Amino acid sequence: MGETAIYNIMKQIRPIDDVVQKDVLARFDELAKPQNSLGRLEKLVAQAAGIYGKHSPTIERKIIFLMAADHGITQEQVSPHPSDITRQMVLNFLNGRAAINVLARHFNTEIVITDMGVKGDLSQLLGIFNKKIAQGTGNIAKEAAMSREMAERSIKIGREVFEEVFAQRQIDLIGLGEMGIGNTSASSAIISLLTGAEVEEVVDSGSGLTPDGIKHKITVIKQAISLHKPDINDPIDILSKVGGFEIGGLIGCIFAAAQRKIPIVMDGLISGACALLAIKLNRVIKDYLFTSHCSREKGHKVVLDYLGMTPIFDLEMCLGEGTGAVFGMNFLEAGFKLLNQMATFTDLKKINQSMRNNN
Amino acid sequence: MGETAIYNIMKQIRPIDDVVQKDVLARFDELAKPQNSLGRLEKLVAQAAGIYGKHSPTIERKIIFLMAADHGITQEQVSPHPSDITRQMVLNFLNGRAAINVLARHFNTEIVITDMGVKGDLSQLLGIFNKKIAQGTGNIAKEAAMSREMAERSIKIGREVFEEVFAQRQIDLIGLGEMGIGNTSASSAIISLLTGAEVEEVVDSGSGLTPDGIKHKITVIKQAISLHKPDINDPIDILSKVGGFEIGGLIGCIFAAAQRKIPIVMDGLISGACALLAIKLNRVIKDYLFTSHCSREKGHKVVLDYLGMTPIFDLEMCLGEGTGAVFGMNFLEAGFKLLNQMATFTDLKKINQSMRNNN
Repeated sequence: MGETAIYNIMKQIRPIDDVVQKDVLARFDELAKPQNSLGRLEKLVAQAAGIYGKHSPTIERKIIFLMAADHGITQEQVSPHPSDITRQMVLNFLNGRAAINVLARHFNTEIVITDMGVKGDLSQLLGIFNKKIAQGTGNIAKEAAMSREMAERSIKIGREVFEEVFAQRQIDLIGLGEMGIGNTSASSAIISLLTGAEVEEVVDSGSGLTPDGIKHKITVIKQAISLHKPDINDPIDILSKVGGFEIGGLIGCIFAAAQRKIPIVMDGLISGACALLAIKLNRVIKDYLFTSHCSREKGHKVVLDYLGMTPIFDLEMCLGEGTGAVFGMNFLEAGFKLLNQMATFTDLKKINQSMRNNN
Repeated sequence: MGETAIYNIMKQIRPIDDVVQKDVLARFDELAKPQNSLGRLEKLVAQAAGIYGKHSPTIERKIIFLMAADHGITQEQVSPHPSDITRQMVLNFLNGRAAINVLARHFNTEIVITDMGVKGDLSQLLGIFNKKIAQGTGNIAKEAAMSREMAERSIKIGREVFEEVFAQRQIDLIGLGEMGIGNTSASSAIISLLTGAEVEEVVDSGSGLTPDGIKHKITVIKQAISLHKPDINDPIDILSKVGGFEIGGLIGCIFAAAQRKIPIVMDGLISGACALLAIKLNRVIKDYLFTSHCSREKGHKVVLDYLGMTPIFDLEMCLGEGTGAVFGMNFLEAGFKLLNQMATFTDLKKINQSMRNNN
């Protein structure tokens, strides 16, 4: 599949089904509870039902697409951890002992791991998609993260990974997860470019920078932006100049899921950057995206405010890997159970009558 | 057990174990993730560990104590629903089709239902604790909700219900749930008295009042407070004059759980009123209480702000029954799994070494 095919798919995403969405909201009003007392959960479930185009779907198979890649910008000391940690954490994912493994087990959710561009050789590992584009991106303080062709390819690969999993059996809900030392820098650059926020407003401590470290990170990101001058009306230009392979891969997942009418739950800062790029490519995507938490990385709130999205929860988490998304997915899953299993006020009368008759 | 015994138990609650709490926070810093990247979840888990007095407890048995009772104030048209709905909803709980049933099944949590004072005869029903004190409280616009003896008895009964369940087998975590048409009025009165907030600031639409209905509810509650002039330094006086049987019962559960070193997860407005009364009886209780959501009932935020507690999530829910608490309990459960199952950075090096050796 060439570039044109990818762009065609991006443009093909259909608006969600308004009629189903309204019907589901009306159904919530019939349930034995005060009107609107499930609050925004009713609206989120109705929106997801509108995506499925079904009135009472059940959520069975849930998947976190966890994409990993390295970032050349780590050469500029923008992270307290070396790039080597990315590869080590992929091994940890395979050993089932990272935070996302624990939470995915807890929530009966699968994890699909993809090497989009991790430094080092992971080709012998079983249980991950080996889709390495390069040994990490270029150092954006000095060169483009990747070529335009690589940027397009990263999106194409993300879609292919999704389709390969989807071909096995139905997917009902996906969450976005990532691992990549340096990727808060790439994401902050993208967020600043697409929201118009100052770099200072969207850069935070990442995996644990000191205040001085944050100042340095701001300087390096500003330098990268001023060196490359990405075209803010061309998301692929932004992705190639200051992005990351895992960011491109997750954009591919987003488009593939939307094409298959599957809701997508965002995680924190990095998935926020992915969402901005995906929406810039096709604004219909916004209706397919759900928030989970508000990350402690301050740039994430900038994204959510820019998109007019309200997070479900806030525990000041900033771990990545999809650890916020997996909680958000669970709220949606629980919401559909409420829609499908609760008694209506009419049922309540029947239950009451039957009890009277039995006593 | 007489009054004195109950008061003795209330005074016996011990401070939580600070050493365990600090050790658990230190353990979180060893795990393979950026420092503090699980945010407030780390603090909540450490606090709960401090309650258990154990470094790596597991949460197995989770119970929602769901207490139901009616309120004489419904005679003043402060709710769009008649008292009869309380009894009907108890039947719905037993049929497993209320919101809390759906969520409790989803989260593998048990529900313990108690009739603390529901109008009508529920004595033939299996599967609930029949602890009816009276056929609903008095209409607080004209008379006290209950006698002082009844108020004390409601707390005692709450404790007995907890102990009866606890005697069967270990309880690891409890959530507070309630059902009682009219109980947002009782709770708003309690919250106004104990936080010093104006009645207008803590009264909201309950199960669906119009703006005019809310104005009327405010007038009625003000009338009740000015009629009874409860002693704000005497929680039992407040409970007896403007409270409810389910509110007393839940206070009994709170004290019993704290005595048994079990964390307690609050729900919305009504559990907020219970928490204020319980803390007024013994301020050590505060360390045993956990928030779940922030309810759309505006008085709930007044409680949380007054107590300096930050909710975990906010979906503008206001359904009651423990529907917020059960989500909050799940965050704690997931948090302990993270503590117990995640690899440390030391483990990560070993995993990495072992992979190198195998390749």
